[in-house]
Amino acid sequence: MVAVEFWYEFGSTYSYPAAMRIERLAGEADVPLLWRPFLLGPILKEQGLNDSPFNIFAAKGRYMWRDLTRICAAEGLPLIRPPIRFPQNGLKAARLALVGEAQGWTPDFTRAVFLANFAEQKDIASEETLATILSGLGVDADAALAEARTLPVKDRLRAQTEEASRRGIFGAPSFLIGDELFWGNDRLEAALAWAKRA
Amino acid sequence: MVAVEFWYEFGSTYSYPAAMRIERLAGEADVPLLWRPFLLGPILKEQGLNDSPFNIFAAKGRYMWRDLTRICAAEGLPLIRPPIRFPQNGLKAARLALVGEAQGWTPDFTRAVFLANFAEQKDIASEETLATILSGLGVDADAALAEARTLPVKDRLRAQTEEASRRGIFGAPSFLIGDELFWGNDRLEAALAWAKRA
Repeated sequence: MVAVEFWYEFGSTYSYPAAMRIERLAGEADVPLLWRPFLLGPILKEQGLNDSPFNIFAAKGRYMWRDLTRICAAEGLPLIRPPIRFPQNGLKAARLALVGEAQGWTPDFTRAVFLANFAEQKDIASEETLATILSGLGVDADAALAEARTLPVKDRLRAQTEEASRRGIFGAPSFLIGDELFWGNDRLEAALAWAKRA
Repeated sequence: MVAVEFWYEFGSTYSYPAAMRIERLAGEADVPLLWRPFLLGPILKEQGLNDSPFNIFAAKGRYMWRDLTRICAAEGLPLIRPPIRFPQNGLKAARLALVGEAQGWTPDFTRAVFLANFAEQKDIASEETLATILSGLGVDADAALAEARTLPVKDRLRAQTEEASRRGIFGAPSFLIGDELFWGNDRLEAALAWAKRA
């Protein structure tokens, strides 16, 4: 059975509803799910963008927040605006998400960080916030944070971000079924249907 | 009953499937439909963009064509790539679409122009192409083209494009239900559901 790879960035607004619903939808579709955190910033820089397109293009940004509000309402997801800044820096959270893979807490951690960002107005770049989330999941926060600071983890995140770019990813969230790319929370259903046919 | 306003640009790829399916879906939803052609170029220029974002950002452009191919396949819509250029200049077609309102041929004309662009590799900026389309609809092509060259029609299209920008439109296709904006072919169903609740 072919898997869906879920490529997400902790600062990305539309990655939030995708992260909250993908495990349920992939389960219903019986499609294996791989969580692939990456950093969108370096990929936007390759495109010549030094900020989120939602900040650079004001009308697009205004629309995005309205659209996200409708989507979260329809999904029953909390959304408290504004976040403490937009986009937030998801570097440490992404490294931790990689650390969690071996111990299996990446999905719960990912959802908690997205809630902290978009429903709780917390600073997700702060180790305090991240430690509180980890402890709440029964994870040894000090050990996880220490591992997240090691070179192998930093290198893995860099390599994962380079892989995203190499495989054609230019925004978040994105879904890959083999080489077939789907971009945006609104393509999640199409991506899962593709995986089922593959 | 509140109407859905369909804002479209003849050079826009995702406006094509939207144009082909909106009359059926609006009819099924029992939502009145208003066809609002406009020019996206001046709005992109306001954002500092001198070309389609799909040309400026290569990875996004590659993805868009693949995504459009999947969408057209799912909808049973013909798609012959590449168009003679991308984006094509929809200025004359948009003026003609305004001329057609009084005589009721705007929807049929709009669909035919999108097919000419994306399924027939025709030059939609050419008066020959447009005259052939008009004649095929039983419209007096010379009279329509002559009217499309008049100042009042030029001014109407300029005003309509300014209205799009003023009401928050930054891309095509867009749908307005009163002040509620939906962007993208993939938001058509949500826009119609919003109109039904309004």
